[in-house]
Amino acid sequence: MPRLLVLHGPNLNLLGKRDPEVYGERSLKDISSELEAWAREKGLELEFLQSNIEGDLIDNLQKAEGVFGGVVFNPGGFSHTSVALRDCISAIEVPVLEVHISNIHAREQFRRHTLTGEVSRGIITGLGVDGYKLAILQLAELI
Amino acid sequence: MPRLLVLHGPNLNLLGKRDPEVYGERSLKDISSELEAWAREKGLELEFLQSNIEGDLIDNLQKAEGVFGGVVFNPGGFSHTSVALRDCISAIEVPVLEVHISNIHAREQFRRHTLTGEVSRGIITGLGVDGYKLAILQLAELI
Amino acid sequence: MPRLLVLHGPNLNLLGKRDPEVYGERSLKDISSELEAWAREKGLELEFLQSNIEGDLIDNLQKAEGVFGGVVFNPGGFSHTSVALRDCISAIEVPVLEVHISNIHAREQFRRHTLTGEVSRGIITGLGVDGYKLAILQLAELI
Amino acid sequence: MPRLLVLHGPNLNLLGKRDPEVYGERSLKDISSELEAWAREKGLELEFLQSNIEGDLIDNLQKAEGVFGGVVFNPGGFSHTSVALRDCISAIEVPVLEVHISNIHAREQFRRHTLTGEVSRGIITGLGVDGYKLAILQLAELI
Amino acid sequence: MPRLLVLHGPNLNLLGKRDPEVYGERSLKDISSELEAWAREKGLELEFLQSNIEGDLIDNLQKAEGVFGGVVFNPGGFSHTSVALRDCISAIEVPVLEVHISNIHAREQFRRHTLTGEVSRGIITGLGVDGYKLAILQLAELI
Amino acid sequence: MPRLLVLHGPNLNLLGKRDPEVYGERSLKDISSELEAWAREKGLELEFLQSNIEGDLIDNLQKAEGVFGGVVFNPGGFSHTSVALRDCISAIEVPVLEVHISNIHAREQFRRHTLTGEVSRGIITGLGVDGYKLAILQLAELI
Amino acid sequence: MPRLLVLHGPNLNLLGKRDPEVYGERSLKDISSELEAWAREKGLELEFLQSNIEGDLIDNLQKAEGVFGGVVFNPGGFSHTSVALRDCISAIEVPVLEVHISNIHAREQFRRHTLTGEVSRGIITGLGVDGYKLAILQLAELI
Amino acid sequence: MPRLLVLHGPNLNLLGKRDPEVYGERSLKDISSELEAWAREKGLELEFLQSNIEGDLIDNLQKAEGVFGGVVFNPGGFSHTSVALRDCISAIEVPVLEVHISNIHAREQFRRHTLTGEVSRGIITGLGVDGYKLAILQLAELI
Amino acid sequence: MPRLLVLHGPNLNLLGKRDPEVYGERSLKDISSELEAWAREKGLELEFLQSNIEGDLIDNLQKAEGVFGGVVFNPGGFSHTSVALRDCISAIEVPVLEVHISNIHAREQFRRHTLTGEVSRGIITGLGVDGYKLAILQLAELI
Amino acid sequence: MPRLLVLHGPNLNLLGKRDPEVYGERSLKDISSELEAWAREKGLELEFLQSNIEGDLIDNLQKAEGVFGGVVFNPGGFSHTSVALRDCISAIEVPVLEVHISNIHAREQFRRHTLTGEVSRGIITGLGVDGYKLAILQLAELI
Amino acid sequence: MPRLLVLHGPNLNLLGKRDPEVYGERSLKDISSELEAWAREKGLELEFLQSNIEGDLIDNLQKAEGVFGGVVFNPGGFSHTSVALRDCISAIEVPVLEVHISNIHAREQFRRHTLTGEVSRGIITGLGVDGYKLAILQLAELI
Amino acid sequence: MPRLLVLHGPNLNLLGKRDPEVYGERSLKDISSELEAWAREKGLELEFLQSNIEGDLIDNLQKAEGVFGGVVFNPGGFSHTSVALRDCISAIEVPVLEVHISNIHAREQFRRHTLTGEVSRGIITGLGVDGYKLAILQLAELI
Repeated sequence: MPRLLVLHGPNLNLLGKRDPEVYGERSLKDISSELEAWAREKGLELEFLQSNIEGDLIDNLQKAEGVFGGVVFNPGGFSHTSVALRDCISAIEVPVLEVHISNIHAREQFRRHTLTGEVSRGIITGLGVDGYKLAILQLAELI
Repeated sequence: MPRLLVLHGPNLNLLGKRDPEVYGERSLKDISSELEAWAREKGLELEFLQSNIEGDLIDNLQKAEGVFGGVVFNPGGFSHTSVALRDCISAIEVPVLEVHISNIHAREQFRRHTLTGEVSRGIITGLGVDGYKLAILQLAELI
Repeated sequence: MPRLLVLHGPNLNLLGKRDPEVYGERSLKDISSELEAWAREKGLELEFLQSNIEGDLIDNLQKAEGVFGGVVFNPGGFSHTSVALRDCISAIEVPVLEVHISNIHAREQFRRHTLTGEVSRGIITGLGVDGYKLAILQLAELI
Repeated sequence: MPRLLVLHGPNLNLLGKRDPEVYGERSLKDISSELEAWAREKGLELEFLQSNIEGDLIDNLQKAEGVFGGVVFNPGGFSHTSVALRDCISAIEVPVLEVHISNIHAREQFRRHTLTGEVSRGIITGLGVDGYKLAILQLAELI
Repeated sequence: MPRLLVLHGPNLNLLGKRDPEVYGERSLKDISSELEAWAREKGLELEFLQSNIEGDLIDNLQKAEGVFGGVVFNPGGFSHTSVALRDCISAIEVPVLEVHISNIHAREQFRRHTLTGEVSRGIITGLGVDGYKLAILQLAELI
Repeated sequence: MPRLLVLHGPNLNLLGKRDPEVYGERSLKDISSELEAWAREKGLELEFLQSNIEGDLIDNLQKAEGVFGGVVFNPGGFSHTSVALRDCISAIEVPVLEVHISNIHAREQFRRHTLTGEVSRGIITGLGVDGYKLAILQLAELI
Repeated sequence: MPRLLVLHGPNLNLLGKRDPEVYGERSLKDISSELEAWAREKGLELEFLQSNIEGDLIDNLQKAEGVFGGVVFNPGGFSHTSVALRDCISAIEVPVLEVHISNIHAREQFRRHTLTGEVSRGIITGLGVDGYKLAILQLAELI
Repeated sequence: MPRLLVLHGPNLNLLGKRDPEVYGERSLKDISSELEAWAREKGLELEFLQSNIEGDLIDNLQKAEGVFGGVVFNPGGFSHTSVALRDCISAIEVPVLEVHISNIHAREQFRRHTLTGEVSRGIITGLGVDGYKLAILQLAELI
Repeated sequence: MPRLLVLHGPNLNLLGKRDPEVYGERSLKDISSELEAWAREKGLELEFLQSNIEGDLIDNLQKAEGVFGGVVFNPGGFSHTSVALRDCISAIEVPVLEVHISNIHAREQFRRHTLTGEVSRGIITGLGVDGYKLAILQLAELI
Repeated sequence: MPRLLVLHGPNLNLLGKRDPEVYGERSLKDISSELEAWAREKGLELEFLQSNIEGDLIDNLQKAEGVFGGVVFNPGGFSHTSVALRDCISAIEVPVLEVHISNIHAREQFRRHTLTGEVSRGIITGLGVDGYKLAILQLAELI
Repeated sequence: MPRLLVLHGPNLNLLGKRDPEVYGERSLKDISSELEAWAREKGLELEFLQSNIEGDLIDNLQKAEGVFGGVVFNPGGFSHTSVALRDCISAIEVPVLEVHISNIHAREQFRRHTLTGEVSRGIITGLGVDGYKLAILQLAELI
Repeated sequence: MPRLLVLHGPNLNLLGKRDPEVYGERSLKDISSELEAWAREKGLELEFLQSNIEGDLIDNLQKAEGVFGGVVFNPGGFSHTSVALRDCISAIEVPVLEVHISNIHAREQFRRHTLTGEVSRGIITGLGVDGYKLAILQLAELI
């Protein structure tokens, strides 16, 4: 059964608490359970990781190579500042698809561009938790 | 049966001819047929429009209100320059979802920001023709 | 009886529907009727045109020469992006007076400057529909 | 009888002497007399103040509250540099309408944006002394 | 006999009327006649089109493929703002050569760069109507 | 008994009236009385001055030398525009501590940097009227 | 007894060694002891944490919720670059007050703005170690 | 005997106290006496004025017309920020020559350009008090 | 027989060796011979000069006055950086026409604007060696 | 025997896998072995550390003080974004020499400046693995 | 007798021919003769040099050390672009005083700042040929 | 015996005199002798050239082809301004290695980027005269 990594960056462990009008009211755990069940029906296995540490995310992306068929990655605030994460995604071969819950083009100026997105396969932004589902569907098709 | 409008902006009628290594080799007609069949299976009716004229696109977005359940919109080069299209999307209530075939964050500097995307429900970029499918799935869920 | 052209750019046909808290609740038709009656009392004849197409607006400005005594022009979103409309206004001799319903200096950064306003006789901004009346009064005085 | 304050900023006491091809040949006194007579016919009382001192203008705007029905304000060169005047206009409740004799969008780069205009009810620019008349008409309507 | 398209963008139908000290005193019709006669002597057939509508110009460039040996294109004000025209020129294969009557490097800041010129074969600027002749000579050589 | 000057810049005389949700509902007089009583308990004498005139503030800062042990200064809108006040603070030796009632980093772009703060001993921002108390405590310690 | 967290970011463990003319000669341990004793007299309990790892700081801020009455936070160099820390502070509800030992407006250009400060309750900058005391006093008042 | 006005802007009354290594150790009074004596020998009468108030300087420049043969003006910090002073100098006809004691091109970025200098006859910068002498000599020649 | 100067700036002596895919494979000598023969048939005499020294180019432009009927000038890398060459071209009266072999709008950002082109009669860019021929034809017409 | 620390930042553990045409085909381990042997011949002992975590690198730089005679540091992507690493290098006294394998001036715009390099002893860039050798030689000379 | 070098940069040998309305109608030779006679009366010997070559000017500035008491330098267009001339002036000890005939603050944007002026003793700009005299007087005083 | 050219740009002939605290106290001659002896021991022959003239440096780089095995180039102030030198280095095939004595990232903003460095093999900066030795070692290895 194809396996995908769903990787969350900083502060996504606060989902449900942080700006619920922007990010929704469900916790990361709730969302993960829903995604897991939904994916299993489609014959896909998901693994979930969240870290607030940039280097941990880099480590996990590097380790994903050969283990997962693809990575759904929400780099949170690091999207806009991390050359190191960008270098990592561009160095590995496992396909990475970037997801943002809110529409990054419709918020503060500093959220408009995504350095990590520059080297990802694609970016889905503004579709809430559904964005993860679309990304999973898309990666499943690639495998 | 729910109906969606798939609206294409300038030069997308050249699909298959323009930079095939970036945009693929199928024509807009081929892609539309494929999308139509695929959507019909999912119980959705699609209508397709393409125009190179900014004002035509505005007219069609305005007319979509009350007629379609949603619009999948690829504004092409107008994404980056058209305040008028942005004003239109923000003025109408039918949900608009923006799609770009190529990854707009990975090309020229002037393609990085999307004025129309600022006021769309979401943006899917870099996933080729699959981006349209994901957008259709997402709009179908909204209706 | 002196005749003036009241020319509206993109999305102004949505007046009454678009952001009513910003643009008011009356439709373009209602406003035009009111302006027409009000002007007729002052001995002025108005003609109204609206288009979402940049080139149509250019065509109409060019044709206004020798036909109208002046043009009240709300270029909408084209004010901020159209070198071509700016070139047109600067090339014709019929006096053009620019009107914006909302205060363009009090909104998004990209609305602050008006390329078309650079070459218009004057600019009235932020006074709602009254802005059109003031512009008509002013053009009537010029004729 | 409704009373309005016509407030002039720096160097407007030089009207008639300064760049007559831009600002006309009449002195501030001549213009004020004309405006006064014209307004009186319309049943309005005007009071005139001019100062080259930014803080004086702030003092007079603050004092206008409760005394005048509105302020026609030409902040001259302070429009482009004074955060303090901007703060003042935004803090008081008497309606302020900004007038510029010349078209601020058609001159030097540093005159394009008006900080004070950001928080005024509206801005009339480029219509010469007629701009004051239009502003007076508009404020009279508000009262 | 080789055929070339001479395509004019917005406001070029005003030649002879607009800023004669910059653009000369002859009308577009006069110039076209002169160019046509001059080209015929050199064994070339010219066709002339002018439009103020960006999308019309895109349509005509797309249709030129396979019909004309080359396009002499003066995009007027669209040169500086149109990503869509740029995308079109870069997508088609018929050679496009950009001509500007005035020297775009010697005027306003916003005329200095040409987006359409980035992807044209070459640019001739500042040589008045002679620029068209040089462009025709050059395209004739390419064919 | 050590004496401190509490110096207020433009529009701070409107406290209680201006944006109460940002600046609170108490008047400058109320606040001054409270601060005076509070300081007296701590064995400190305060003197209060407010002016809307940049040059008055400069005069008062210059005169503070040798008279006061320190200055608590809220330069209001002048913080962001006045090279002259900056030069003054850097020229005198009496310690100046800058206070802003609201958080200047959390508002408009033009309020982010403080020219006067560049040469002050320190800056306290965002703590409301308590900011003045903290500044007084700190200056008392310096003396 | 109310408890506050005093959280230090990168390189603050070098206090006493790093640029003593800017940051003073006492070590972080000495300063913490002094602050602890001083706070205890005022009936406040302090806890101290320092980390050079951005994600550790995020973790600790998240954990502070419900445990501490407030956080005195010196984010060091992360103030100017970390969107992730900014997102964290804006997502939690425990009040955070930012302190900088040196005056961030009086040093290099890149230290002028504080992303984390944008969403903190307030900022105290330039007052050396006394800045911590003022922040503690202020948070004690909030509780 | 020809009369010249020597006009000093903000903080120049602090000469001798402010940054003596930059501005020298003599007071404004000492320097004025020296200049007066030196000028008298050359058959010139000088009058001295200093103000920290922008509007006072504008008033004095306006009054200089017809009274003085020229103005030696050191606008201090207002050089870099005052559109109003710039407008004043450009509106009056008495020749104004700008002097800066220090080299404005060799200090902070914000001192590099002088708005008032744009419209002055000339600028002498970096020559200390001698700059005033050279300006006086030059104006004497003009008269 | 009319004489023209063909003046080449830095590194153009490397033609044929430098980036042949951009600049072609013929040496400057070969090209000059071809141009010379071609021009002679048209009754024109050409003289050729190349220098890597900015001041030499200035000297030669100055000396061209009265000797040549026009100058075809390829300033190479100096186009983008030399205010001195720009001043020279604008000071002399002999017509100068600028030629670039490659399309300066389609390369690095720093090649987009040409300081020397601002004051030349016109600019031909992107047409390879044919650009020289077109420039010669154009200058021949002027004489 | 003098000891040096060779410290690698994020993604350098991917050497040999990441962009081999840019970074070469040898792994970090291979390179380290080669450097170790080469250094030992020159009587130098090397220690190697790599981390993807910014704070780990800060920790290790701080600990290097007193233990190593110098640090050869390749901060990878952190060079361009980390104020915290910059502060650390400037706070410690052990000499740090920065090395980049590729030429940072010849790649993306965001790699051109190095914040960490601002405060390092020197920077060697573009010389591949040889850059490390040159840095070691240089530090050996310093000790 | 004290000797001064009057050094002229590019295009100043065209004085009298270039833009006479800006630079006057006298040639460099005429001006030099006048300055020489005028200086001799004041007991000063002048030497004149002009070059269009940046490196020649550097050579001559370097050679001036120990030979001349000071240099009056008009770097022409090199003022705004030459880091090398700036480095030279800052490296030598002979005092250099920069003169510009026209007011560099009142012309094109690119002439506003002077790199060479940053490190000169002072700058005199806008006073025509009299600027040289004032500079000579000033240098004579320094010697 | 392999031969290398050591090429110095403007003002490097002032070594020992210019800012000795930055550039050291030895003259260019002393340094060259030391480098020559040191290189000869390593079996390398060096040739030294210095010029203040940009075009001379271009000439010498062009002539180095086929004569030298490599060039150690310190372009001095030209690094930051010369497109022509950049074009030259990129056109020739002899390897060029750029050396700066001081750390260009730690000085003025305008020294941070090196246009010539963009196309050099590598850059060594901040290591004083040792930088030349490292560059020589590196080029020796390439040959």
